Amino acid sequence: MTRFVTIAAGQLGPVARTETRTAVVARLMALMRQAKANGCDLIVYPELALTAFFPRWYFEDQAEIDSFFEREMPGPETRGLFDLAREIGIGFYLGVARYRKVHLPGHAEHEPWREFQHLEKRYFDPGDGFGVTEAFGGVMGMAICNDRRWSETYRVMGLQGVEMVMIGYNTPVHNPPAPEHDDLSLFHNHLVMQAGAYQNGTFVVGVAKAGVEEGVDHIGGSCVIAPSGEIISRCTTKGDEIALARCDLDLCNSYKRTTFNFDVHRQPHAYGMIVERKGVTLMADGTPVRTKR
Amino acid sequence: MTRFVTIAAGQLGPVARTETRTAVVARLMALMRQAKANGCDLIVYPELALTAFFPRWYFEDQAEIDSFFEREMPGPETRGLFDLAREIGIGFYLGVARYRKVHLPGHAEHEPWREFQHLEKRYFDPGDGFGVTEAFGGVMGMAICNDRRWSETYRVMGLQGVEMVMIGYNTPVHNPPAPEHDDLSLFHNHLVMQAGAYQNGTFVVGVAKAGVEEGVDHIGGSCVIAPSGEIISRCTTKGDEIALARCDLDLCNSYKRTTFNFDVHRQPHAYGMIVERKGVTLMADGTPVRTKR
Repeated sequence: MTRFVTIAAGQLGPVARTETRTAVVARLMALMRQAKANGCDLIVYPELALTAFFPRWYFEDQAEIDSFFEREMPGPETRGLFDLAREIGIGFYLGVARYRKVHLPGHAEHEPWREFQHLEKRYFDPGDGFGVTEAFGGVMGMAICNDRRWSETYRVMGLQGVEMVMIGYNTPVHNPPAPEHDDLSLFHNHLVMQAGAYQNGTFVVGVAKAGVEEGVDHIGGSCVIAPSGEIISRCTTKGDEIALARCDLDLCNSYKRTTFNFDVHRQPHAYGMIVERKGVTLMADGTPVRTKR
Repeated sequence: MTRFVTIAAGQLGPVARTETRTAVVARLMALMRQAKANGCDLIVYPELALTAFFPRWYFEDQAEIDSFFEREMPGPETRGLFDLAREIGIGFYLGVARYRKVHLPGHAEHEPWREFQHLEKRYFDPGDGFGVTEAFGGVMGMAICNDRRWSETYRVMGLQGVEMVMIGYNTPVHNPPAPEHDDLSLFHNHLVMQAGAYQNGTFVVGVAKAGVEEGVDHIGGSCVIAPSGEIISRCTTKGDEIALARCDLDLCNSYKRTTFNFDVHRQPHAYGMIVERKGVTLMADGTPVRTKR
């Protein structure tokens, strides 16, 4: 029995701050129909697919912040997407569902010196961890954006047998604290996902919200990566676009049973430091400082 | 104060089984003199630089096995290398010193179906872990061969502030249990080292024993990788050759203080599974099965 999943990386161009969820959902539905027409079983959308990337702004008004969060899924403006998916028979990843992003990049306080803010540590709390789900005949995992830069993300899912990791991201080309990385942002994006795929014998699907959104340029580079670490499909624009790949989940075994046969080759006795909370600042009562709003 | 280390990746071509240590040491000394003439502070040699890669053969005679190990360092045949290094003032990594390889690839029992053996699990015991050493004005780390495919190797050293990881390897192009990986062996070699460098903000120096040794072809691809993940210098042959790079150790900070500021961004609460010995086979007395001779 073969286990093929035909997947669409459903890249979005920018979402303006004034754009309604209804308008964005219409764009998502257009990509979904395209994916289905190309025989896809599943479409992966970017992180923060429904709104502009709001952590780039400093807000003090909680009601304004709340306006960027979903109160229910599906809600009145998103229901059409769920209905269409059910009607035509396709799965989708929206980057807002059960999975909670673990690695929050950026900062928690307003830093006016930056050209734009990256206040994820202000507006979000870190998630608990990385789970996997059996679906589409395989073991599926989810991560969001900055999680993809951390090898632990893939490893924790790899140890649970993950065969396809879906990752949505919004990544500015410009990194204010390290502008010397700007030219490499697309290279870094692919490097970390390719290594994560190979080192865990899993497909990785990385999907961007790309292009110039509210004056800030974001990388594209949405792609599907095989368990070999090879990019097997990718978007070529920075707008709404799907990239297609027919993924044989059994390819994962070629790596999981050889070079990365964890039961045979891992040496956890040497990894202890990875889970120590070395260097963590403690509060007066001894609990570690956690970034929260 | 700047902290430059000029480094040579001291790649070796094959070492025949009949080649004496004295003959190999003469080759190593030639590379060392070349490195010094090019202003190097340090030269990195491959894994098993002094002999043929003997785990490719199945031996039953312990004396024959022992003939491939060093009884003392320096010994009568290797002393010249140490003396030359002291005389001209250069450091070197030989892949046989204090560091003990943690991740042993291959197998422990004779598998005659293979074109050649890879009996590292038979002839070696896994090392205890990954330490670092202050030297050359920076924080230096060592790993060997298959260790480089495991993200934990770099992370454990990264958590100790490593700024340059030196890795010697002997990697056959052909992987008997997974020949479908053969075409990708050079790509995988670079992918894992580039990701390890970027994700920990460290230089990585990877050095091969390359070419056709006793009928088995090995990858070359010796290189120096910057903390950006970029390959900044590499060998172009599969023979004795040095690749040079002038490494500014302060470049590491560009990554260690931003994207990979571990104190600010790591989430060890989500990593627990990485140190669990899940799936490990236990012996009757409850101790985990360890591969040893």
